[in-house]
Amino acid sequence: MRREFDVAVEAARAAGGVLLEGLGRGGEVRYKGEVDLVTETDEASERLLKERLLGAFPGYGLLAEESGQTAGEGDVRWIVDPLDGTVNFAHGLPVFAVSIALQRGREVVLGVVYDPVRDELFAARRGEGATLNGKPMSTSRNSELIRALVATGFPYDRTEMPEALELFGRFATRTRGMRRLGSSALDLCYVACGRLDGYYERGIQAWDVAAGALILEEAGGRVTDYRGGPLDIEGREIVASNGPLHTAMLEITRGFSGAQRIRRST
Amino acid sequence: MRREFDVAVEAARAAGGVLLEGLGRGGEVRYKGEVDLVTETDEASERLLKERLLGAFPGYGLLAEESGQTAGEGDVRWIVDPLDGTVNFAHGLPVFAVSIALQRGREVVLGVVYDPVRDELFAARRGEGATLNGKPMSTSRNSELIRALVATGFPYDRTEMPEALELFGRFATRTRGMRRLGSSALDLCYVACGRLDGYYERGIQAWDVAAGALILEEAGGRVTDYRGGPLDIEGREIVASNGPLHTAMLEITRGFSGAQRIRRST
Repeated sequence: MRREFDVAVEAARAAGGVLLEGLGRGGEVRYKGEVDLVTETDEASERLLKERLLGAFPGYGLLAEESGQTAGEGDVRWIVDPLDGTVNFAHGLPVFAVSIALQRGREVVLGVVYDPVRDELFAARRGEGATLNGKPMSTSRNSELIRALVATGFPYDRTEMPEALELFGRFATRTRGMRRLGSSALDLCYVACGRLDGYYERGIQAWDVAAGALILEEAGGRVTDYRGGPLDIEGREIVASNGPLHTAMLEITRGFSGAQRIRRST
Repeated sequence: MRREFDVAVEAARAAGGVLLEGLGRGGEVRYKGEVDLVTETDEASERLLKERLLGAFPGYGLLAEESGQTAGEGDVRWIVDPLDGTVNFAHGLPVFAVSIALQRGREVVLGVVYDPVRDELFAARRGEGATLNGKPMSTSRNSELIRALVATGFPYDRTEMPEALELFGRFATRTRGMRRLGSSALDLCYVACGRLDGYYERGIQAWDVAAGALILEEAGGRVTDYRGGPLDIEGREIVASNGPLHTAMLEITRGFSGAQRIRRST
């Protein structure tokens, strides 16, 4: 997996360069859609990632935010988000990243998240720990929710907003502070390096969290669904923590699980 | 006011250096208080600001977050926040700033906000426009709330939380996205340079917003209280916008004004 890792790191850095260039162009990329805007830069970044990753490994599949699924020959696929934090990017808010994961069967085995603005590369291979710009990193040791800084996001699907707001309110009153930075991949990496203590969100997609979740686990953190079950990257919900805070976070999220909701309504 | 401006810029950069140094020390500064933690770095930054600003202008007063009011000879005073974004800083989240304003009578005439992590200096003198690292900057031209990116903060006083959450919910459902970055001074400056379209908060103090509000006004934005009245930097509430969005924001905040609340209860 050494070669996959090196190719992913190089691809993430190159795609980050495309994003930085696009950021400089400013106005051109703004206001293409209503809420889930798609930018030219986003597409250019995705083209670059596909060329690099499938060019080096023609037999692998690839799942990407913009172009969807490219079938591979076996059960190995890349999962990429060419621009995580699109709304930030479109507004010029310098909080966004490139995210690349490699999945074998059901298991994510490699994750790379690159923030080109801060030139920070978060990376992990399963079983080998996590690094920030090549140096080992680990989560915070904080075990009290009232001292915790917790990030979240809100669903694009507005019908889910009332429940998201209720959950947000419960966290807001039980933590030191809430943050809404606007990039799931960076939220997870910030928990991984101790800048945040936790993160949760409903409405996420596989490409938002595949890399960041592995990086966080390898840094000593925990990732599950809202009820504490194993994270399903296609299950749309995630609770991520430094480890010690996980149980306290699940006590709040448990009743808000999508699966829970479906059970309640049947 | 040229000399005041130069001294303020130099002091902000020097204090920013103190913060960066403190950030590197990491663990030492964490978990001193419960929610409103005070760090050694915060105090060192404030000492530096007082020495520089009162050293250069011995007759001026000074209002600072940690040490409160130092009386001057006339009606001119500095208003400084040596570390805006203390909770972020304590967690190592790289979003914080030094804020310096100069007030003559009731009027803020000079504002400097410095983000040492990104090396970004936001500055304005009344009537002379606003700059980011010396270059003129202006707000976004967005006039539709559903396309807006809006930042806010939550009160340290937990009794005010239910109302803050209700207000947050109204914004969350009517905007493209909400952000909670954790530094009022930077929130205001980000509206000033178009990275955000608006910002509102209740529970703010004079040192949080004195500089940023002037910078935003000079960049073409608007700042008022929740009902649209002139901003009182000691009035604890602020609505800040790019300009075009101001009326739409006030329609949401109006009923949540502190003054409104007091009137309702009498």
